[in-house]
Amino acid sequence: MDKDAWHERLETSADTPSELFEHFQARTDHGLEYYHLPDARHGLERGTVLVETTGAVVRGYPSVPRVLVLDPGVRHYFESDRVTIEEKLNGFNVRIADVDGTTAFTRGGYVCPYTTERARQLLDPGDFFADHPETMLCAELIGPENPYTVHDYDETETNAFRIFDVRDRTSGRPLAPERRRELCAEYGFEQPQTFGWHTIDDAPGAVRDAIETLDTESREGVVLKSEDGQSLLKYTTEATHHAELADAFALPFEYGRDFLFSRLLREAFQTVEFEDSPDRRRERAHDLGESILLPFAETIEAVADGETVGERHTVRGDPETINALLGHLREFQLTIDIESDRRLEGERVVTFTKVAASTNDRIEHYLDGGIVDE
Amino acid sequence: MDKDAWHERLETSADTPSELFEHFQARTDHGLEYYHLPDARHGLERGTVLVETTGAVVRGYPSVPRVLVLDPGVRHYFESDRVTIEEKLNGFNVRIADVDGTTAFTRGGYVCPYTTERARQLLDPGDFFADHPETMLCAELIGPENPYTVHDYDETETNAFRIFDVRDRTSGRPLAPERRRELCAEYGFEQPQTFGWHTIDDAPGAVRDAIETLDTESREGVVLKSEDGQSLLKYTTEATHHAELADAFALPFEYGRDFLFSRLLREAFQTVEFEDSPDRRRERAHDLGESILLPFAETIEAVADGETVGERHTVRGDPETINALLGHLREFQLTIDIESDRRLEGERVVTFTKVAASTNDRIEHYLDGGIVDE
Repeated sequence: MDKDAWHERLETSADTPSELFEHFQARTDHGLEYYHLPDARHGLERGTVLVETTGAVVRGYPSVPRVLVLDPGVRHYFESDRVTIEEKLNGFNVRIADVDGTTAFTRGGYVCPYTTERARQLLDPGDFFADHPETMLCAELIGPENPYTVHDYDETETNAFRIFDVRDRTSGRPLAPERRRELCAEYGFEQPQTFGWHTIDDAPGAVRDAIETLDTESREGVVLKSEDGQSLLKYTTEATHHAELADAFALPFEYGRDFLFSRLLREAFQTVEFEDSPDRRRERAHDLGESILLPFAETIEAVADGETVGERHTVRGDPETINALLGHLREFQLTIDIESDRRLEGERVVTFTKVAASTNDRIEHYLDGGIVDE
Repeated sequence: MDKDAWHERLETSADTPSELFEHFQARTDHGLEYYHLPDARHGLERGTVLVETTGAVVRGYPSVPRVLVLDPGVRHYFESDRVTIEEKLNGFNVRIADVDGTTAFTRGGYVCPYTTERARQLLDPGDFFADHPETMLCAELIGPENPYTVHDYDETETNAFRIFDVRDRTSGRPLAPERRRELCAEYGFEQPQTFGWHTIDDAPGAVRDAIETLDTESREGVVLKSEDGQSLLKYTTEATHHAELADAFALPFEYGRDFLFSRLLREAFQTVEFEDSPDRRRERAHDLGESILLPFAETIEAVADGETVGERHTVRGDPETINALLGHLREFQLTIDIESDRRLEGERVVTFTKVAASTNDRIEHYLDGGIVDE
């Protein structure tokens, strides 16, 4: 399809085809020619994909805003009288669509060869797409064997998908959450647990109850959704704030300054709104301090001992997929250290480290006596 | 003096007078006409002052680098065989020179009317400048009654100066530390405490000992100096890292992200180099967490209760000086809330809050349910 035709088909605020395509990038992966949008522009979400090969549009998943204060934040944000509360899972967020076969796209709009293969195997969505060709499954790939996130869930030994949204892939419009739950149940797709529907006035209390339960299980948090599924709002647990800081400070020079501050912000507003007792707040502060200093110091010690630090992942799949995945990661300038690479029941299982270059370099510099000029 | 004449007199890397003056700003304070340099440029330090009225140059105080790791940091940094260790005080850093009378300049090169008056009264440096007209006293104004810093010292009830350097004000060249100590003693000027001279190999251990002593007294840290006084290096205590974080998180939206990260960096390298036991490190982590979360949450609660938050200071002086000081602060777009204003033994004593506008505004926004779009 030429650029004029794409421009005419898309509902975009770009006035001309060239204005629209200025921010799209062209790629070809496994015979699929497509354009993808690395940042939200012209009324299109980040990760929006235009498939040259088939003419399909796969809209990006919208960025979900957060409130720091549930009351009155929830009431101010939603126009809907009722909201549903669902668990927000900590995994790898993809959109799965039938464009020249089942294909999984990352948040940024790249084809992920590993997730694509996992989706074909674990979801087997052929029947679903035969009945609903124009939709996309918005899913979290969770479990220890994934190449992107390090969070584990007790219920998942290798990987699993949870479908948290079904959307029209051309317009991006979501199914209403109630309809989506029915539809996914019908096709046997697993979904995040739900904490039910609540009136807008009851919702802050219901979120607090859900958050307390999730927090004791070290789970991430919740997403609130309006009746039509169009308005989304997220809120996370203390365990998540601390775990994210601990992950970040294990690789302290890889994560931006804003990353740090935003998590501290969530903690501070949460301890105030939850009216933590002085003892409880102090305990929270201690856990917070531990999540910052302990991983940071351990990483310095590891570098001092000559180790190479980075994020460790294990992946499993047919040999070709694993090859494609490693190529895909290296294409993003990542340095991959393979720790083990073996066959297990016909599959290839690889454990590797994504080398954290800045952290290794900066820590070595300071250990060598490098000065900080302030 | 015209710009050509200044350009000829100064040792600067600027090729032309206009290149030199591009970054200087002109000011007049209490009849003193001068140019000052807000940032280091053209081989001249930040805060360098050119006095039109008298033709005097007052060079800025150089930025003092820091190491995160004493061994080998100290050995790599110094060329000198011996270094001296002196206490680094936490106060307000000024240069005091005789330019049309004793005048105190801030780090940025502004005349501070309050510090000028304090210097005339507390130091009375007339005799010193009569004998050494071409020098400047580099001093820390410490004590609770100052308009810039909040740190207190047990030994100081109101304010006191400590002279940590004497420099030629035109060339910026320092006296050797040994000579400076004799000279200051001769004129009765107090100086920071010294931890003696050490060989370069013994210095890291000596700094550790000094830091341990200073840490138990919640004092800031040390500055190492070469024999000629030209090379300077600083290193700070755990107590300072935590206190600075606590001050910053009492006004969390006023301080940059880099402020936060740089303190965490110092903590992490220090706990590694000091080989803290697991229990000691955990205790440090808890104190760190408390210094972040507790003041942050208390400030949110204060704003929720309708208070205006900011930094609280008390100053004391003759009524005219206090007027000049408040005018000086307001000139920098600070909002000053006067809490009390009274006369005590012929002096005016004012307690005021510098209103922290970003912190008040952002916290109110989030308390009202403002969303964070990530």
